[in-house]
Amino acid sequence: MDNMEFLFWIVPAASVCGLLFALNRGLNVLKAPEGSERMVAISGSIRKGANAYLGRQYKTVGIFFAAMFVILGIMSFLGFLTPFVPFAFLSGGFFSGLSGFIGMKIATAANARTAYASSQNLNRGLRVAFAGGSVMGFTVVGLGMLDLSIWYILLKFVFYTADNAAVLQLVQEGLTVSDAQIQLMSQAMLTFGMGASSMALFARVGGGIFTKAADVGADLVGKVEAGIPEDDPRNPAVIADNVGDNVGDVAGMGADLYESYVGSVIATIALAVSAGYGIAGALVPMIIAAAGILISIVGTVFVRCKENASDKELLGALRKGTWISSALIAAAAFAAVKFLLADNKSVEAGMGVCGAILSGLVAGVAIGFFTEYYTSDVYKPTKKLAGSSKTGSATIIISGISLGMASTAIPVIIVGISVLISFLCAGGSFGADFAANFSKGLYGIGLSAVGMLSTLGITLATDAYGPIADNAGGIAEMSGLPPEVRERTDKLDGLGNTTAATGKGFAIGSAALTALALIVAYIDEIALKLKEAPELLHKILGDGSAAQTVEEIRAALMEQFTLTNPPVLVGLFIGAMLPFLFSSMTMNAVGRAAQSVVVEVRRQFKEIKGLLTGEPGAEADYAACVDICTKGAQKEMIAPAVVGVVSPLVVGLILGVNGVVGMLAGATATGFVLAVMMSNAGGAWDNAKKHIEAGNFGGKHSEEHKASVVGDTVGDPFKDTSGPSINILIKLLSMVSIVFAGLVLSVNLVGGC
Amino acid sequence: MDNMEFLFWIVPAASVCGLLFALNRGLNVLKAPEGSERMVAISGSIRKGANAYLGRQYKTVGIFFAAMFVILGIMSFLGFLTPFVPFAFLSGGFFSGLSGFIGMKIATAANARTAYASSQNLNRGLRVAFAGGSVMGFTVVGLGMLDLSIWYILLKFVFYTADNAAVLQLVQEGLTVSDAQIQLMSQAMLTFGMGASSMALFARVGGGIFTKAADVGADLVGKVEAGIPEDDPRNPAVIADNVGDNVGDVAGMGADLYESYVGSVIATIALAVSAGYGIAGALVPMIIAAAGILISIVGTVFVRCKENASDKELLGALRKGTWISSALIAAAAFAAVKFLLADNKSVEAGMGVCGAILSGLVAGVAIGFFTEYYTSDVYKPTKKLAGSSKTGSATIIISGISLGMASTAIPVIIVGISVLISFLCAGGSFGADFAANFSKGLYGIGLSAVGMLSTLGITLATDAYGPIADNAGGIAEMSGLPPEVRERTDKLDGLGNTTAATGKGFAIGSAALTALALIVAYIDEIALKLKEAPELLHKILGDGSAAQTVEEIRAALMEQFTLTNPPVLVGLFIGAMLPFLFSSMTMNAVGRAAQSVVVEVRRQFKEIKGLLTGEPGAEADYAACVDICTKGAQKEMIAPAVVGVVSPLVVGLILGVNGVVGMLAGATATGFVLAVMMSNAGGAWDNAKKHIEAGNFGGKHSEEHKASVVGDTVGDPFKDTSGPSINILIKLLSMVSIVFAGLVLSVNLVGGC
Repeated sequence: MDNMEFLFWIVPAASVCGLLFALNRGLNVLKAPEGSERMVAISGSIRKGANAYLGRQYKTVGIFFAAMFVILGIMSFLGFLTPFVPFAFLSGGFFSGLSGFIGMKIATAANARTAYASSQNLNRGLRVAFAGGSVMGFTVVGLGMLDLSIWYILLKFVFYTADNAAVLQLVQEGLTVSDAQIQLMSQAMLTFGMGASSMALFARVGGGIFTKAADVGADLVGKVEAGIPEDDPRNPAVIADNVGDNVGDVAGMGADLYESYVGSVIATIALAVSAGYGIAGALVPMIIAAAGILISIVGTVFVRCKENASDKELLGALRKGTWISSALIAAAAFAAVKFLLADNKSVEAGMGVCGAILSGLVAGVAIGFFTEYYTSDVYKPTKKLAGSSKTGSATIIISGISLGMASTAIPVIIVGISVLISFLCAGGSFGADFAANFSKGLYGIGLSAVGMLSTLGITLATDAYGPIADNAGGIAEMSGLPPEVRERTDKLDGLGNTTAATGKGFAIGSAALTALALIVAYIDEIALKLKEAPELLHKILGDGSAAQTVEEIRAALMEQFTLTNPPVLVGLFIGAMLPFLFSSMTMNAVGRAAQSVVVEVRRQFKEIKGLLTGEPGAEADYAACVDICTKGAQKEMIAPAVVGVVSPLVVGLILGVNGVVGMLAGATATGFVLAVMMSNAGGAWDNAKKHIEAGNFGGKHSEEHKASVVGDTVGDPFKDTSGPSINILIKLLSMVSIVFAGLVLSVNLVGGC
Repeated sequence: MDNMEFLFWIVPAASVCGLLFALNRGLNVLKAPEGSERMVAISGSIRKGANAYLGRQYKTVGIFFAAMFVILGIMSFLGFLTPFVPFAFLSGGFFSGLSGFIGMKIATAANARTAYASSQNLNRGLRVAFAGGSVMGFTVVGLGMLDLSIWYILLKFVFYTADNAAVLQLVQEGLTVSDAQIQLMSQAMLTFGMGASSMALFARVGGGIFTKAADVGADLVGKVEAGIPEDDPRNPAVIADNVGDNVGDVAGMGADLYESYVGSVIATIALAVSAGYGIAGALVPMIIAAAGILISIVGTVFVRCKENASDKELLGALRKGTWISSALIAAAAFAAVKFLLADNKSVEAGMGVCGAILSGLVAGVAIGFFTEYYTSDVYKPTKKLAGSSKTGSATIIISGISLGMASTAIPVIIVGISVLISFLCAGGSFGADFAANFSKGLYGIGLSAVGMLSTLGITLATDAYGPIADNAGGIAEMSGLPPEVRERTDKLDGLGNTTAATGKGFAIGSAALTALALIVAYIDEIALKLKEAPELLHKILGDGSAAQTVEEIRAALMEQFTLTNPPVLVGLFIGAMLPFLFSSMTMNAVGRAAQSVVVEVRRQFKEIKGLLTGEPGAEADYAACVDICTKGAQKEMIAPAVVGVVSPLVVGLILGVNGVVGMLAGATATGFVLAVMMSNAGGAWDNAKKHIEAGNFGGKHSEEHKASVVGDTVGDPFKDTSGPSINILIKLLSMVSIVFAGLVLSVNLVGGC
């Protein structure tokens, strides 16, 4: 199938198309009028705050990346890593940060424009906001595939050419040229994934801390204590709150999904050779992703609504785009696989691989649906949650946590079914002979993650559109637009909550599948390393082991990764604990930052005469709150990031490879469950509050409403800081393990593997 | 070492000593005067409520046990189980329930007597409350070892005598007579563990729902809404609250620890034969437990204090007893192991086993200390938590959850170290040859759990003493005793919170270790079953497998339990989800039951004229609240119990043995972390509230206090219902898996193992 390699060029081509489409959408947004002077001014403050924040964040992150570059450079120099690794790491971080930055830029430009367009009619508002979201969506997929393409071209056509010494050596050992190339490329590729993960962690955690500190601070003092409405210009934290939507929900989420997207593709590429599918197998995930970009562009055409559309029709408009894309991608997968893999092994195997992709696609949609079921006030769970406010804030908290915990069952089962199906479809088998074909099966698990994320361009567009509509509502409120405008933006925003929930379902589901694929990529990396170092091989597999080929070494390793092996078990416990520790740090960070915002808002209400009563001339000091949030987020995002990077190293050095595998499995399983729980509890609290505000259970200003605000406030860091950050954590742990595999193998204290 | 078997008789002897000591302490309590007529009356209502509750609970549980008896009977009849199993199941449930019942009886007798004794002086109060707690402690350990002894005697000396056919067959296969006996006995023993687990689940969950529904209801309406103090007789839920302390914190906790205690011993017995230690190895855990009973009796002598003792001196008095017992048990373990195992293998192995016991003992104390560190307001975390009330209830909730999550790190590391040390000490090895000696090592993990729980008699006494002191405080308040009496009982009660935290640390730590030992016992059971059924063996290990002996089968099985095997992974995800689902159900149950209490209390305040203002003649209808709690608990405890029993069956039937092992490991790791998080968050909220009530951060009636009450209310189901129930869940899952192993092997849908 090596002659099919020209198909690779579809990938950079699709990525350029995606970027051009993003550019087109962006220009479209900028063409729209921004509205009154007041609207321009407010939007300007938000933009200024967001820029200031991101500027500082990139500075802090820059120091981290510089340090990692030096560490990776030294490790390359010592021979633990190939020389490309430090640069791959930087590029992953750069592109991930860039997609967040562009998304944020356009979102802050689209907010006032959406408000103005909504003052004309609902469809225009939807179109502007969705165009803004599309820039984010297509920048992420476009830059993701561009970075991948650049490395692919560099490594394959410049460095690891057919006459490269490393390639020749592997060819001598029996690999084909292209298999050897893929194997050599995968380390650098995975490191670029690690760069993207690190960046995503900072963006998600830092942005999440910023946005929730501002939100919690604004709500607690403004809404609850002072009793003024949301987005009231008297509230000193209101601009910070709007800035937060952009740096957290847009830039943070962009970096997050960039990383999932790229991570799932490179993990699958890394598994292709050991699965026996060679270069064709490596091309499948890339081509599916490329097809997904083109198809998503088509899907966006269908997102439009008529004037005065009902909530249901609005949702239908967004859904239509996604569903059409999903159907098209299924067809594309079928074609791509048939073409690439059909005569490589057998038609059945090819179609099986296709089944793996579909299982991921279906699982993503199903998880999205159940996320919505548990978090939308159209359904029973959130309605009941709103009802528990009747007995006060404590009962709504208990019920919300309980709802979140219950909502973990179905996604776990969906992911479980998807894992089993994609494993079997791709050629794996259960039972006694599972070891024989497990590489094929695990390649299938990777593909199911790729399938789930293939429509990311449009799902992310529908997701990122939410914060833009949210901001637009704030601007409409603050600039005194007529109430029907606010009603329209509220409609758009409410819809955004639902699509955000669906988007989160995708993000979490794909993170679990990608993490599983990365665990296997880690084991592959260890097997490759052991093959190169016979003395380590004997130390780890025992002198009696006859394992020589990579396959034999991998099989021997897997026998050690059994759950009855104490280092594996201890690793599992540590892994199960890490998402908790990590969430504790991120929540605490929000709590601390929010407390300083609360203190500042209270101070301004007290010290600025006439502010609360709304006397003319009494203006809140918005910049002070933005500044507090920025500083808080900067300071607080370091420690959680360090946990993510250092844990695999410490566990590896003490418990060895067995401990690392246990830790990765534990962190993935528990992290998945905890992330679902936190995201869904937070989403449900948010919508329960909105349900009450819509006039149920006493409506606004009732005791029930106060209780629901407490629920929403607790839920904010759950759903926008800690929960989504766990997705990144579990992948970062795997990526770091892979990159530092050589180091861990050479030095470990407890002995054994 | 068969000639050492007379040593077994130490076990029933020690159990009788324990029971006699409990009787002596009980009579001692009953001798003490009960105080004024009003005190007798209040204590009478509490007793009546508690009796009524337990009566109904046993009826509901009776139905479950009858159903299970029939199911197990049919399975025995069909040959899946030995005929003893149904009876063993009943006996485990009976003795577990009995210890809870006796403990509750004496606790409800000791409450007024403690209040009266405290009106004389602090030391007398301490002595009466501690005597009451001792009855619970020694009933649990006494009945636990009695039940074990009865089954041991019945099975070994009556049924599986040396000329029994089953024994003879195993002897023909190469086992010694006593090894064959132990192997045959272990199934019935483990079933009696399952009976105790089931009972414990009902008692913990039902009692937990009762106590927290009452507590939350009383606090929310009484303290927060109406602003009346805790334990005020005007509050209609006040008696239900006191009843709850007895049915939840005493009877529920008694059944819980009965089950941990017995579970750790029988799991270790089940591992003794495969570890190669034979009958001597089976005797070690029993004799350590027996020695623990006797030593704990000695330890109780040291629990006394001088009048006007400071908090520190009081804690010192309780600690002294525990520490002396721990030191003595270490010496006893040394002696017992030297005597029993020294010439069985080698002196080194014997001493290694001793190290395993000690590692558990030390781990228990260490976890207890860190539990206290995170939950006592003497230390920084809880003080900081109290401070976060300044910004309202939302921030104290966020900080509390965050504290609980952070507090999971150290216990995980302690358990991890203990697992590694006890595994190595007992003769296991890491790395390539870990499979060779892993049975010995895992036997060591079981012993470390036994070591941790060996001093249960006295640790449980110091733990159960807390609710008695709590009740005494309530009675002092309601019967209008002078304020200095309430101060003294508050001192005793505050101490009880600390010892309860320590007790919970032991319960959680030992649950994790016991569950790990039970997972291995499960694998042993599967290996034994496969040996008996060659056609299953071929189906599961593949036709190519040459495994014939139990050891070989076990080794072959372990290779399948690798983390890269998809059914194992999917099981792991499901296992990680189960504690969340289970906690959701238990918390929801508390929420629902509490809401009905809130409604009832509000109704009484509204409808009973003069109740709130305290006019004479206006009496609250206490019985109505007790009744609501009872009904709520009965209804709500069924579903979570069903999850515990049904999950291993469903997972086993669909995913096979691989899935079950994954599920057990996932549930143990995640369950441990979640239980620690919930218990510690709840404990810290409770003490943060007490810290504020002591005059910090604005003291009582401040906004800070109101916020802290919300925290405490959320924490109640965390620490007293869901958290501790998870300990039982993770062991019940293993026990059910073992008992239904034969069924799962014969029928499973996905195929493979």
